[in-house]
Amino acid sequence: MFVLVVNAGSSSLKYQLFDMDKQEVLAKGLCERIKIDGLFTHTRLSDKAGVKQIAIPMNNHADALKCVIDYLTGAEYGVIKDMSQISAVGHRIVSGGPWLIDSCLIDGPDGKVMQSLRKCINFAPLHTAGHIQCIEGCMTIMPDVPQVLVMDTSFHQTMPKKAYTYPIKIDVAQKHAIRRYGAHGTSHKYVSQIALQYLGKKDAKIVTCHLGNGSSITAVNAGKCVDTSMGLTPLEGVMMGSRCGSIDPAIVPFLMEYEGIKPEAISDWMNNECGFKGMTGKSDLRGVRELAANGDENAKTALSILAYQVKKYIGSYAAAMNGVDCVVFTAGIGENDGDLRKEILDDMSFFGIEIDEAKNNSVRDHKDDPVIDITGKNSRVKVLVIPTNEELAIATDTMKVVSGK
Amino acid sequence: MFVLVVNAGSSSLKYQLFDMDKQEVLAKGLCERIKIDGLFTHTRLSDKAGVKQIAIPMNNHADALKCVIDYLTGAEYGVIKDMSQISAVGHRIVSGGPWLIDSCLIDGPDGKVMQSLRKCINFAPLHTAGHIQCIEGCMTIMPDVPQVLVMDTSFHQTMPKKAYTYPIKIDVAQKHAIRRYGAHGTSHKYVSQIALQYLGKKDAKIVTCHLGNGSSITAVNAGKCVDTSMGLTPLEGVMMGSRCGSIDPAIVPFLMEYEGIKPEAISDWMNNECGFKGMTGKSDLRGVRELAANGDENAKTALSILAYQVKKYIGSYAAAMNGVDCVVFTAGIGENDGDLRKEILDDMSFFGIEIDEAKNNSVRDHKDDPVIDITGKNSRVKVLVIPTNEELAIATDTMKVVSGK
Repeated sequence: MFVLVVNAGSSSLKYQLFDMDKQEVLAKGLCERIKIDGLFTHTRLSDKAGVKQIAIPMNNHADALKCVIDYLTGAEYGVIKDMSQISAVGHRIVSGGPWLIDSCLIDGPDGKVMQSLRKCINFAPLHTAGHIQCIEGCMTIMPDVPQVLVMDTSFHQTMPKKAYTYPIKIDVAQKHAIRRYGAHGTSHKYVSQIALQYLGKKDAKIVTCHLGNGSSITAVNAGKCVDTSMGLTPLEGVMMGSRCGSIDPAIVPFLMEYEGIKPEAISDWMNNECGFKGMTGKSDLRGVRELAANGDENAKTALSILAYQVKKYIGSYAAAMNGVDCVVFTAGIGENDGDLRKEILDDMSFFGIEIDEAKNNSVRDHKDDPVIDITGKNSRVKVLVIPTNEELAIATDTMKVVSGK
Repeated sequence: MFVLVVNAGSSSLKYQLFDMDKQEVLAKGLCERIKIDGLFTHTRLSDKAGVKQIAIPMNNHADALKCVIDYLTGAEYGVIKDMSQISAVGHRIVSGGPWLIDSCLIDGPDGKVMQSLRKCINFAPLHTAGHIQCIEGCMTIMPDVPQVLVMDTSFHQTMPKKAYTYPIKIDVAQKHAIRRYGAHGTSHKYVSQIALQYLGKKDAKIVTCHLGNGSSITAVNAGKCVDTSMGLTPLEGVMMGSRCGSIDPAIVPFLMEYEGIKPEAISDWMNNECGFKGMTGKSDLRGVRELAANGDENAKTALSILAYQVKKYIGSYAAAMNGVDCVVFTAGIGENDGDLRKEILDDMSFFGIEIDEAKNNSVRDHKDDPVIDITGKNSRVKVLVIPTNEELAIATDTMKVVSGK
């Protein structure tokens, strides 16, 4: 069974084609600058053959998908004979709001599912518009292939009321469905399930740290999410590449008044002009590390803030769960930056946390392992690095939904 | 030595006259509706004699202070012979910004100190304007009496950079001195010092929970503040009577867009229409408890949110300090609501925290004790209820400044 996983933004579309029997990726790629001009990248995994950023006009997501299908089935870089071999398409959805709880099959262009998805547009405007255009494109190009939605918010639906409710004026909160939804749920679920298997302890208390360009921390008790750092939107929580994360909300009107930032620009400012980028000019952690190595004080401060914020989340979630058995690091920064992992977990002996520095430093050598255990000798808490694979998780969920299992 | 402590708002002025040799309050009172019409309340502590909310015209803070002096020196309810007996006035200042670090003597109406205070107006506009008017009133009425400023932000000045820096665009942060300043510092300092004496352990790690109409949590390591929940303004942190506390900052532009709240109104909305009031209609905890007892689900949720948020702060500050030796509760809610203390500290065995329920329930019977120890038998962490006394702390600081000690 072949499953196509797509992750569409407003002007981009990432894809991976999975052979689910072998649990492996056959081909993957990226459509960029959709609606602008169109750039296409495609790689066949078996021999790394393909094309890189070639110009192909893409007026919309349907054009982009047509191009994807052409390459997946083409003679030169193809991996399947024709489109009919694709059993299902799994779509990554950033926010399902309060309406789309579990992964689900789309019941037609104007069915309940698409109606619900359209209502979610307020929670992630750019992303959701892209999702909808991509799904509509799929329905045009592949009308007979089942389409499945897999929401980044699903895993967080088990949070208790005290964790997801914002203490704001209640009628306004209800009217607009303002609450904590979280994000990166597919990743947190994936790595926490692998951690549970590794620990062999079903009721383990796990803190999963998804640290990438976007970062979020989740408390997972016995396999269920009980709290997460992202909120109504993916802005809340720890600082990120260009996002400020949690700040005194009074700073928002303060900036409008004293800096003259307009209401329509403030969201963009907090999402795109802050975080590492706002403090150092570099939005990627490697760039910030370089600056810090060259003595840049702001870069050093930025790194220490991120480590400190993650450390505090681990402490607060240990309080929420009355314990922590395991800390998991995943995603770009979590998997690759040993110095950050060390700074986060240094001086956590009160929590029984200690890492093995040699193992922590050699994580790169074990990148293909499903679990890299960096727990220190005397640590009561397991510390694991688990490479995330959101696409595989989406493909797996998609297969489950279409096979009714 | 007699010290007058004043706490001025934009249209109010609270005062207490201390006999510092006996460390006791001789008289206290309140001027309300200054600039509107004027209401005055005064009590002589020795015999509880005085007046309650009598109408006295007050066009400005100078009028209010004239009235205070008249009553303090008056035949009927007075406690001193004349104004010359007042050795100093101590002013409570909500925010000293980055300029007013330690308690200090005012060096004239246009000296450095007043210039600095005027620069702090952005951080707490209404409060600071009231402070300035009150100080100017004092200089008019009591030109020869030394005036001392005691800042609510001073105690938090020892926070490390990683705790006080917001990861926002750095030039904007620097231009407007946007950082975490915290609040309730005089209270956190006062109760943490009493706790340190009680514990007899100079390097103790203490989390102080000042829970009142405004609430903040502070991490105190070896007597120094290392982190605190309030931020640039007293809005950040846990939910409060009518303040939302920390929320996804993206909710601010969301509300502007979808609820049509104007930029100039959003700060007022978050400070005055949220928290307990926004969720239940009642802004005081007793009112919320009554609703909850009658089955109001929103009231129950609100109480569980506050307890959960404080619990998480204790965990995060234990992570920040790599340990916690003592948790202190103070202020209106912290001193009086045993159910909340219990809910906060229930299921904290991982942290070695346990309370003695009988002692927790009998705190009211020991209200005049400087320390009420509610630590459970097997608790590794001391749990204390310590009635705060910000006025005494201000008077003590004032005396130190004028006596040069």
